[in-house]
Amino acid sequence: MISENLLFLENLSIGQEFVSREYPLDAEQIISFASQYDPQPFHMDPEAAQNSFFKGLVASGWHTASVSMRLMVETMHFSGGVIGLGGEISWPRPTRAQDVLHVHCKITDIIPSKSKTDRGIVHLQSQTINQDGEVVQQLTAKLVVFRRAL
Amino acid sequence: MISENLLFLENLSIGQEFVSREYPLDAEQIISFASQYDPQPFHMDPEAAQNSFFKGLVASGWHTASVSMRLMVETMHFSGGVIGLGGEISWPRPTRAQDVLHVHCKITDIIPSKSKTDRGIVHLQSQTINQDGEVVQQLTAKLVVFRRAL
Repeated sequence: MISENLLFLENLSIGQEFVSREYPLDAEQIISFASQYDPQPFHMDPEAAQNSFFKGLVASGWHTASVSMRLMVETMHFSGGVIGLGGEISWPRPTRAQDVLHVHCKITDIIPSKSKTDRGIVHLQSQTINQDGEVVQQLTAKLVVFRRAL
Repeated sequence: MISENLLFLENLSIGQEFVSREYPLDAEQIISFASQYDPQPFHMDPEAAQNSFFKGLVASGWHTASVSMRLMVETMHFSGGVIGLGGEISWPRPTRAQDVLHVHCKITDIIPSKSKTDRGIVHLQSQTINQDGEVVQQLTAKLVVFRRAL
């Protein structure tokens, strides 16, 4: 990565947006993630999933979150990396096996640190959206972003 | 799983706690997760990580979240599964390669649904704790839990 393309705190502004590439999911990926991290029938067994709350195979919410993170890391080239302190997450509808996801992020606040003058906290709103334009994940995150060294 | 052991909404009470088994992490797991979902140097390259914000290899926050989910699914045998609508998450300190994690959960509220009488929303506070008793993840989640069918 060429450092000329990296974004520092002073390159960011409230309202700035980032849109990722598209990421196609499939049943194999969903089952593979779930078997390691969320081994429940509606994430692992297409047949059993038909009779579940979800009426079909769905991705673990944490899988959706992890794919969204990958897309954010690929899209937002912050100088120190994408470093999240935490945030609020929700899954208004499930991610399904044929979904093609992308992430749309917007900076909603920038708070320079008073004690550590080399950095600030950036508030980011991120939506993960499927091929039908439906939001499958909503995330409001706080990120640490660094200033350019003087 | 024997259905006698499954927990329904009426089996739960505010203040009820669940403690998981221990889950040992290592550098290989951290790098493997990161290479798929969070490909940043401080999650993938122990040497580069030394010069990063974290001063050493650390797990992706989403990896910590995913491991925590696995431990919750193994520990809380709710009748319809562990189904999260969303919540608040934070990582007060990083998860490192030699960490042994466990999860401690507590039910903080139970809200029967007015429109759908077969279910309710359970508020759960979950802490992911390392071998030194330090909290590496704090999660407040809303779960859907079902009543026993009449």
